[in-house]
Amino acid sequence: MGPFELAPIGHVRSVLKDRSTAPRQGSEGAPDALIEIVPEFLDCLDGIAPGQEIWIFTWLHQARRHVRKVHPRKNLDNPLTGVFATRSPDRPNPIGLHRCKVLGVHESTLTVHALEAIDGTPVIDIKPALEC
Amino acid sequence: MGPFELAPIGHVRSVLKDRSTAPRQGSEGAPDALIEIVPEFLDCLDGIAPGQEIWIFTWLHQARRHVRKVHPRKNLDNPLTGVFATRSPDRPNPIGLHRCKVLGVHESTLTVHALEAIDGTPVIDIKPALEC
Repeated sequence: MGPFELAPIGHVRSVLKDRSTAPRQGSEGAPDALIEIVPEFLDCLDGIAPGQEIWIFTWLHQARRHVRKVHPRKNLDNPLTGVFATRSPDRPNPIGLHRCKVLGVHESTLTVHALEAIDGTPVIDIKPALEC
Repeated sequence: MGPFELAPIGHVRSVLKDRSTAPRQGSEGAPDALIEIVPEFLDCLDGIAPGQEIWIFTWLHQARRHVRKVHPRKNLDNPLTGVFATRSPDRPNPIGLHRCKVLGVHESTLTVHALEAIDGTPVIDIKPALEC
């Protein structure tokens, strides 16, 4: 089976404009951001409310998909490590996983707290964060 | 941008053979399972060790992608809810997210604890679980 095809269900709107200035994790000072949902998927949002924790899945469109190993956190003192053992955006299928709190829901836009993805990043799925 | 193309990086091997018998979440009695990694992505595993918690991303190949709302847990007493507010496998981009403990790593196979995906499910990414 495969390959499989993904469609963007939304896009990130953020003050973060390029990858070099984006923090590596949402907990490291990421800004609040907006998710603009593609109109045909608006019904899928029904039930998401402010205060809720969600997983946002992004497509890291600037990733280098041929990369198999990296020095974690781009620090050459860290030994070369398989990308599945790291959070590197460079990986065969560049899916980003972000846990965020919903601040608001207004028509086709979610406002979320502390999202490290850059402006324009495609969003491919949203799920409630049940764990923890 | 988009659509985007995903390649399977591995496949689930499990005693769960069809969707009707699979538990809805790993915490609800899912069995231990194997992940067979596709040979070209073996290097990506380097650094994953027994005892570690990982996120396994699957492609829920039997999902119905046109579904926008569901009755959560297929209980008609639960009001129709947008799929992004639920863990329904039926959703526009049917990505499954599973938190599992690694039990073993042997050549091209990971053994993991409590995975609710059915046998043959494509695996599309693996990340360390840093949260919590």
